[in-house]
Amino acid sequence: MDLRIISKTLGRLLLVESAFLIFPLIVSLYYQESDSKAFLITIIITALSGLLLNLPKIKKGIVRYKEGFMIVGVGWLIVSLFGAIPFILADTFTTFIDAFFETVSGFTTTGATVLTNIESQPHGILFWRGLTHWLGGMGILVFTLALLPAMGLSTVNILKAESPGPSPGKLVPKIAKTAQLLYIIYILFTVMEIVSLTIAGMSLFDAFTHTFATMGTGGFSTKNLSVGHYNSIPIETIIIMFMFIAGVNFSLYYDALLGNFKTLLNDREFQFYFAVIIVSTLLITININGTLNNLFLSLRQSSFQVASIVSTTGFTTMDYSVWPEFSKMILFILMFFGGSAGSTGGAIKHIRILIVFKYIKREFTKLIHPNSVVSIRLGGKPVPENIVQNVISFVLIYFVIFVVFSLILLTQNLDLISSTSAVAATLGNVGPGFGIVGPAQNYSGLTTFTKGLLSFAMILGRLEIYTVLILFTPFFWKD
Amino acid sequence: MDLRIISKTLGRLLLVESAFLIFPLIVSLYYQESDSKAFLITIIITALSGLLLNLPKIKKGIVRYKEGFMIVGVGWLIVSLFGAIPFILADTFTTFIDAFFETVSGFTTTGATVLTNIESQPHGILFWRGLTHWLGGMGILVFTLALLPAMGLSTVNILKAESPGPSPGKLVPKIAKTAQLLYIIYILFTVMEIVSLTIAGMSLFDAFTHTFATMGTGGFSTKNLSVGHYNSIPIETIIIMFMFIAGVNFSLYYDALLGNFKTLLNDREFQFYFAVIIVSTLLITININGTLNNLFLSLRQSSFQVASIVSTTGFTTMDYSVWPEFSKMILFILMFFGGSAGSTGGAIKHIRILIVFKYIKREFTKLIHPNSVVSIRLGGKPVPENIVQNVISFVLIYFVIFVVFSLILLTQNLDLISSTSAVAATLGNVGPGFGIVGPAQNYSGLTTFTKGLLSFAMILGRLEIYTVLILFTPFFWKD
Repeated sequence: MDLRIISKTLGRLLLVESAFLIFPLIVSLYYQESDSKAFLITIIITALSGLLLNLPKIKKGIVRYKEGFMIVGVGWLIVSLFGAIPFILADTFTTFIDAFFETVSGFTTTGATVLTNIESQPHGILFWRGLTHWLGGMGILVFTLALLPAMGLSTVNILKAESPGPSPGKLVPKIAKTAQLLYIIYILFTVMEIVSLTIAGMSLFDAFTHTFATMGTGGFSTKNLSVGHYNSIPIETIIIMFMFIAGVNFSLYYDALLGNFKTLLNDREFQFYFAVIIVSTLLITININGTLNNLFLSLRQSSFQVASIVSTTGFTTMDYSVWPEFSKMILFILMFFGGSAGSTGGAIKHIRILIVFKYIKREFTKLIHPNSVVSIRLGGKPVPENIVQNVISFVLIYFVIFVVFSLILLTQNLDLISSTSAVAATLGNVGPGFGIVGPAQNYSGLTTFTKGLLSFAMILGRLEIYTVLILFTPFFWKD
Repeated sequence: MDLRIISKTLGRLLLVESAFLIFPLIVSLYYQESDSKAFLITIIITALSGLLLNLPKIKKGIVRYKEGFMIVGVGWLIVSLFGAIPFILADTFTTFIDAFFETVSGFTTTGATVLTNIESQPHGILFWRGLTHWLGGMGILVFTLALLPAMGLSTVNILKAESPGPSPGKLVPKIAKTAQLLYIIYILFTVMEIVSLTIAGMSLFDAFTHTFATMGTGGFSTKNLSVGHYNSIPIETIIIMFMFIAGVNFSLYYDALLGNFKTLLNDREFQFYFAVIIVSTLLITININGTLNNLFLSLRQSSFQVASIVSTTGFTTMDYSVWPEFSKMILFILMFFGGSAGSTGGAIKHIRILIVFKYIKREFTKLIHPNSVVSIRLGGKPVPENIVQNVISFVLIYFVIFVVFSLILLTQNLDLISSTSAVAATLGNVGPGFGIVGPAQNYSGLTTFTKGLLSFAMILGRLEIYTVLILFTPFFWKD
C-alpha cells in the first residue's frame, strides 16, 4: 500500500474542510457570538494538519483498490475528528464522544443528535452543524457516482448505461468531470430551496441550515421542534419536495438537464421510489385518520413523515411515536428502504429492494421451467449476474449487521424498540428512531459505548458497508 | 392438469388419516370418555370421502410438477379439514376456525394452540392432538427428503451426495424406498423416547403424547404448564435430547445406521446447528443469571428453551417472556433459524443460514479480486449456483412474508411484539411467541381473520413457501 498517496489525499481533504470552516466563522462574526474563537482555532489546526499530511511527494499515479478503500474509510473518520473540534472548544458538548457522534451524524447525513437544547446554541455552531450535512451529501454523491465506479467496484449505478460514470482507462479526468457536474446540480437545488424557503417566510439563516439538512438528507434542524416549529404548510410542502428530490439518483438530473426528461420518468428505480412514497403515505393517512378524524391533517402529517423517513432525512413535524403501531411499522420498514442509489439518501436504496423482488420472482419461473436461464431485467435491460449477487449480498449483510448491532445495544440497558430503531436509524442514516431515540427525545441518554458503536454504524451505512468492513478482513492486509 | 391423479392421491391420504383416527378412538374407549362417538363419526366420514376420491381409474403414470404442487398444497389443507372434525363433534371448540387452527397447527408441527384449558379435555382428543404432530412430522420427512427431490425441485437436500434421494428416472420405487427407511428411523426414535420418558416417571399416556410432540417438533403438551408441569430434571433432559435429535437431517441417521457416523459429525449443517445451540444457550445463561443468581437454574432454563425454539418444538418449562430483552431477542432470532433441512423442524433451516453467511463472505473476496469466480463450498464440495440462488431467494421471500403478515396483523388490534412474534412463530412452525401469544397465554384471543391468516402462515412455512405460493401465480395455471 502506498501510504504517501493516502496521506496526500487525506491532507487535501483537511485543507478543503478548513476552507469550509471559514463560513461558520463568518456567521459567528456576523452575529458577534462567542464561538468565533472556536472556529478560528479549528481552522488553524485543520489547515496545518492538512498541510503536514500533504507534504509527501508522489508521482502522478493512479489510486489503486486498497488505497481507495483506506482513503474513503479513514477520510470520513478524520474529517469527523477535526470537524468535532469547534463543538468542544465552544462548549457545545462536555464530552468528546458527544462532539464526535454529532459530527459523524452530520457528515454521514444521518441527523441523529445528542444536543438537548438546540436553540440555545450560537449561530456559528448551528451553521457548521448544518454545513456538515451539506458537505457530507456532496461527498457521498461524488463517492457513489464517481469514485466507486472509478475504483471498478460493481455498484448499482453501473446499471444506468447513460450514467456519466468513467471508464477504468482514463480515471482521474473522468472523476473530475463527473464530480463537477454533480456539484453544479447540487448547488442549483440548494439555491432553489434557500430562495423558496425564504419566500415562504423563513429567516435567511434558517433557510440556509434547513436547506443544508434537506439536500444532504441529513435532518439537523436549528429548532428544538424540528420543522414542526414553523407550523407552516408552505414550508412543509417545500421541504417535502426537496427531500423527495434529494432522494433521487442525481445522474438522472444530469440527463434531465440535457433535456432528456424521459430517462428520469422511465427509470425503474425512480418509479418504484415514487410508488413506495405514494402507497406508504396513503396507508398511513388512512391509519392515523382513525384517531385524528381530519383527513387533511392526516395527509399533511403522513406525507411529510414518509418523505422525511424514506429519503432518510429525519426531519419531523410532530411526534410520530404516538401513531398506531401499523403506521410506525411502515416508517420502520421505510428506514431500510432509504433513498435511491446515487442520491444523498442512505440505507439499502430502492433499486436494491427492487432487485430483491425480481430475484424472488425469478425463482417462481424456475420452479415451473427448471432448466430455464432467466436473467433479471430492469427497464428491459438484463442486469449482469455479478451485480445481482453484489446487490443481494449487500441486503443480506445489511440485515446481519442490523441484528448483531441490535443485540449488542440490548446489553446496554436499552429496550427492544429503542435498540432496533436506533440501529436502523443510524445504519440507514435516517436520524430519529422510536422509543428513547424517538422524535420527542434524542441520542444523548445513551452510554459512551453505544454512541461509539452507533457512530460506527453511521459510517458503515454511509459507505455501503463492504467498503468499510473490508478494512477489517485479514485478506485485505495480506501481501 | 390430470385431476384424476390428484383426486386419487388425496383419497388415499384420507384413507390413511381415517386409519390413524382409530388410535384416538381406542384411547377414548379405554378411558370410557364421551369423545368416542366423535372419532367414530369422523372415521366414517373420512373413510367414505377417501373412497369416493379414490374412485377414478388412472394409468400407472408419473406425477408431474403441477399435479405434485396441487397434491402437496391441497393435501395438507384437506387432511386438516377432516382432522378438525373430532374437535367440533367433541365440543372441544365452539367455532370451526378454532378447530381448524388447532389441527393445522398440529399437522404442520407448529404447536400454537387456541385451547385454554388443556387438562379438562378427554384423553382421546389430547391423543389425537398429539398424533397430528407425529403424522405431520412423518409427512414432512417424506415431503422434503423424498417427494421434493423426486419432483426435480432443487432443495438443499441435494447437497448431500450420499442422501438416499432418488434419481428422476425411476421415480415411484425410489420414493417408496426412501420413505420406508425414514419411517423406520422415525419410529425407532419414537419408541426410544416413549421408553425413556416412562422410565423417568411419566405416565404412559403423557409419554406417548409428549413423544409425538417432540419427534414432530410440534410442541402440543397435555398439560397447561407444558413440560414445566413435571418440574423434573430427567424428563427435561430427555426431551432436550430428543428435540435436538428431531432437528437434525434424518438422512444423516440413515448413514449413521449403516455405521457411517463420520458423515453425521462432518456434516457442516450439523456442526453449525450444534454450535448455534451451544452459543445461544451460553449467552442466555449468562444473561438470565444476572437476575436468577443461580447458575445451574439459569443453564437448565436456557438449555431447554434454546433446544425447544431452535428445533421449532415450542415446549416450555417457564414463562420466558419475563426474561431480559437480550435473551428474548436471541430466542426471536432462533425462531428464524429453525431445525436442519430434512428434519421435522421448521423455519429457514440452518443450512440456508450457513449459505447466506458464505454468500456474504464471497462478496468480500470479489472486492479484492474482482475477476475471480468463486463458488460457495460446503464441506469441501462446491454448491451449484442454482441451489445457491434457490436458498438465497427462499431466505428473502421468508422475510418478505414475515414483514407483510406482521403488517396485516397490526391492523387487527395487536401490538408490535405480539404481531411479529405470532408471525415468526407460526411461519417458522415454532408455536408460542411473545406478548399475548407468549408461553403464559395462547392464540385463542385473536380474531377469526387472524387465526385464518396464521393457519395459512403455518402451511406456507411447513411447505417451504414456494411450493404453496406457486399455486397463486398466474403462470402456474397457464396452458
